[in-house]
Amino acid sequence: MDLRECAKIINSDFMGESFEVTKMNTLRDASKSEISFVANSKYIKDIQNSNAGAIIVDKQTKEFVPEGCIALVVESPYWEMATLSKYFAPPIEDATLAKPQIGEGTIVSPKAEIAKGAVIGKNCTIMAHVYIGANTQIGDNTILYPSVTIYRDCRIGSDCIIHANTTIGSDGFGFATNRLGEHRKIYQNGNVVVEDNVEIGSSTTIDRAVFGTTLIKHGVRIDNLVQVGHNCVIGEHSVLVAQAGISGSTTMGRNVVMGGQSATAGHLSIAPFTTMAARSGVTKSINQSGLTFAGFPLVEHKIWLKLQAKIARLIK
Amino acid sequence: MDLRECAKIINSDFMGESFEVTKMNTLRDASKSEISFVANSKYIKDIQNSNAGAIIVDKQTKEFVPEGCIALVVESPYWEMATLSKYFAPPIEDATLAKPQIGEGTIVSPKAEIAKGAVIGKNCTIMAHVYIGANTQIGDNTILYPSVTIYRDCRIGSDCIIHANTTIGSDGFGFATNRLGEHRKIYQNGNVVVEDNVEIGSSTTIDRAVFGTTLIKHGVRIDNLVQVGHNCVIGEHSVLVAQAGISGSTTMGRNVVMGGQSATAGHLSIAPFTTMAARSGVTKSINQSGLTFAGFPLVEHKIWLKLQAKIARLIK
Amino acid sequence: MDLRECAKIINSDFMGESFEVTKMNTLRDASKSEISFVANSKYIKDIQNSNAGAIIVDKQTKEFVPEGCIALVVESPYWEMATLSKYFAPPIEDATLAKPQIGEGTIVSPKAEIAKGAVIGKNCTIMAHVYIGANTQIGDNTILYPSVTIYRDCRIGSDCIIHANTTIGSDGFGFATNRLGEHRKIYQNGNVVVEDNVEIGSSTTIDRAVFGTTLIKHGVRIDNLVQVGHNCVIGEHSVLVAQAGISGSTTMGRNVVMGGQSATAGHLSIAPFTTMAARSGVTKSINQSGLTFAGFPLVEHKIWLKLQAKIARLIK
Repeated sequence: MDLRECAKIINSDFMGESFEVTKMNTLRDASKSEISFVANSKYIKDIQNSNAGAIIVDKQTKEFVPEGCIALVVESPYWEMATLSKYFAPPIEDATLAKPQIGEGTIVSPKAEIAKGAVIGKNCTIMAHVYIGANTQIGDNTILYPSVTIYRDCRIGSDCIIHANTTIGSDGFGFATNRLGEHRKIYQNGNVVVEDNVEIGSSTTIDRAVFGTTLIKHGVRIDNLVQVGHNCVIGEHSVLVAQAGISGSTTMGRNVVMGGQSATAGHLSIAPFTTMAARSGVTKSINQSGLTFAGFPLVEHKIWLKLQAKIARLIK
Repeated sequence: MDLRECAKIINSDFMGESFEVTKMNTLRDASKSEISFVANSKYIKDIQNSNAGAIIVDKQTKEFVPEGCIALVVESPYWEMATLSKYFAPPIEDATLAKPQIGEGTIVSPKAEIAKGAVIGKNCTIMAHVYIGANTQIGDNTILYPSVTIYRDCRIGSDCIIHANTTIGSDGFGFATNRLGEHRKIYQNGNVVVEDNVEIGSSTTIDRAVFGTTLIKHGVRIDNLVQVGHNCVIGEHSVLVAQAGISGSTTMGRNVVMGGQSATAGHLSIAPFTTMAARSGVTKSINQSGLTFAGFPLVEHKIWLKLQAKIARLIK
Repeated sequence: MDLRECAKIINSDFMGESFEVTKMNTLRDASKSEISFVANSKYIKDIQNSNAGAIIVDKQTKEFVPEGCIALVVESPYWEMATLSKYFAPPIEDATLAKPQIGEGTIVSPKAEIAKGAVIGKNCTIMAHVYIGANTQIGDNTILYPSVTIYRDCRIGSDCIIHANTTIGSDGFGFATNRLGEHRKIYQNGNVVVEDNVEIGSSTTIDRAVFGTTLIKHGVRIDNLVQVGHNCVIGEHSVLVAQAGISGSTTMGRNVVMGGQSATAGHLSIAPFTTMAARSGVTKSINQSGLTFAGFPLVEHKIWLKLQAKIARLIK
């Protein structure tokens, strides 16, 4: 879409030469043909390092946009980013794509649905009532149990097992809210990538990224009824036990264990080989590797045990 | 069903003239042609304001039933209400209903199943493996992702998005228990209404009402793996974050935010613009608007922060 | 599979006469034609009572294997048990089985999928997008709502109701981990048995046993989004409220109530008529019947109430 058209959609004037906008992206990841936004003054410092071709900003922030980058000035950048995101959303399915490619030895149930543009590797088992979206790619030897749904543009590796009724690539929970308390959807135009040798339980949900990728690295084990928010990165061989919830944009190193019903806040970083006991609630990043935590608020597990002893005495 | 027949099913005598019973309902909502029940002495005071044509009561409660209303006396009113509820349950599907109506521009996957009596508006997208039950109505422009299941008699508004593997209108968790500890199902003969411009995540469950309606008002945003119990009312623009659980008959005002893994007990009322932090456990109604809470038991968020500081000192 | 072949797969020598191994099993349940393992020194004492024909052990444990039982010595018995488990996994479906038997009066949606070897009783309702696996048996009068998935070799009783998008018999969360932090799947070759008159909500997950059976006894009521781990036993008329999580191998007596979002650790035993309040976290077995508990760590409910009062004073 032409930048001029983008500006018109969000009721913004701009100075400079229009260009063909290929997509929306974060300040950090946007390239010359992409459009970004600043919705919070704490990101002003990142503007100068951005390669974005245009940035949606408010009046106060306009002065920080460097020469060579076009400022689209609006009253509420987050709201207008949401407005514009809709125009970059691809159709759910696309009849113009090539018909699905199915590798040798792969069994696809006649009651599964494979959208156009999908590519499935060799020796996979695609069971009844599975849905594989447009342009989604699946490696070799992967098993998708009944009613697994994978949205468009995702990638699933080889030697994966995904259990029944699990959803991969549904929209992240993103919206802008105006002063009247009304919400506007931020279209989630990223995807999910699941690397090789990953097993995912039943009725688990892994949301697609708003921009970029929600990433499940190789060897990960995810149990049933787990929530993984948009833009998370789950490190190699990490283990997410049943009913754990990982909020958006949280990143884990390798071999992190999240116990049953544990959860993290969003935008955290968790060091490799961290273990969270069941029901842990993680609200801050963990920088030191190899420790075990428990509780909410979170403390080291050995301290949590002492605290429980004190509470037990308090009861008496 | 004739009242005489109802009485026979629950082994009750009654005095007065029989009538055609149209359905079962609460004391408050029952009309002249409906049958209600009193299973708890605290509801005795509501009998005199009820318009019910007949009420199932125990011997002690009989005297409170006013003239013009027929008392059906049984030993265990709750158990017999459960017994009788089965006879008012419609069939799951009904071959005598009209064939589904599909609005102009709506795309229905050949692998979706639309039951008889369903009515779907214009420009909807009904993807593979979706199920839409008997007499269920869907507005315009609504998107149902794969394996969404909507039970019979529900209503979904316009401009809604419901993500994969979500269930709307499944039976609320209702049963009576006798002295032997055995359970008898209370058939859930109400429905779910989702108003316009609502987005619901994947693998979320919204139960139908036992009587009346479970109501999701316009503009609501519900994340993945959320549970909404029977007869809840979720106010306009409210936000339920992943893995939150709302127990039956709880009512929220507009713009309530329920954080991730938060929960409420049943039969509560939560004031508009209330925010519950992640993991909050709400056991009492909130009457004052605009406050933020946290913890379980629930306290105001600022008090919760102080409490955590005290606990931190207790640890040392 | 011949024992010689098993030994070769896990790179073990053995002394004694080979035999046809029928399956893998626990020390306690293995019979003469079965192979077991000892992965933890605390189980050494159980070796002498085992009827297993062969046991995978490490060098230190070999001496405890009695005469007449063959020791398969390896470095990491748990890892090699995982290795071998794959060879005892049946195919997901099996074209050589008999075509499904459907009882009189049972309605099967043309959009359901019934695998070969399945046997369904009389007067059942099998709705669209249901999947019933190989050799799975269903009793009479049972209702399976849309997108219910039941894996192979399971048994569902009569008069059951299973709501939409629920999964029964998916693999338990079992794997061995080596010193590099890599995981190897332990194939879950057991099953799930659901007895008569059980109702299960929507998007609930009940995992199949690793060996033996995950058992849901008659009259049980399970709500939405509940997790039941492999090898659990849920006692008659027990009640699991929404979002509860029962970890693997936990056993409950009859009429246990697990409140909403409550959870148990694994390998516990919970006495009959125990009630756990919402959010309870159970980490030890409960031996005395009829008590009510709350909190995490768990205390008796009356003590929990006092503790909350003390915390309330602490706040002031």
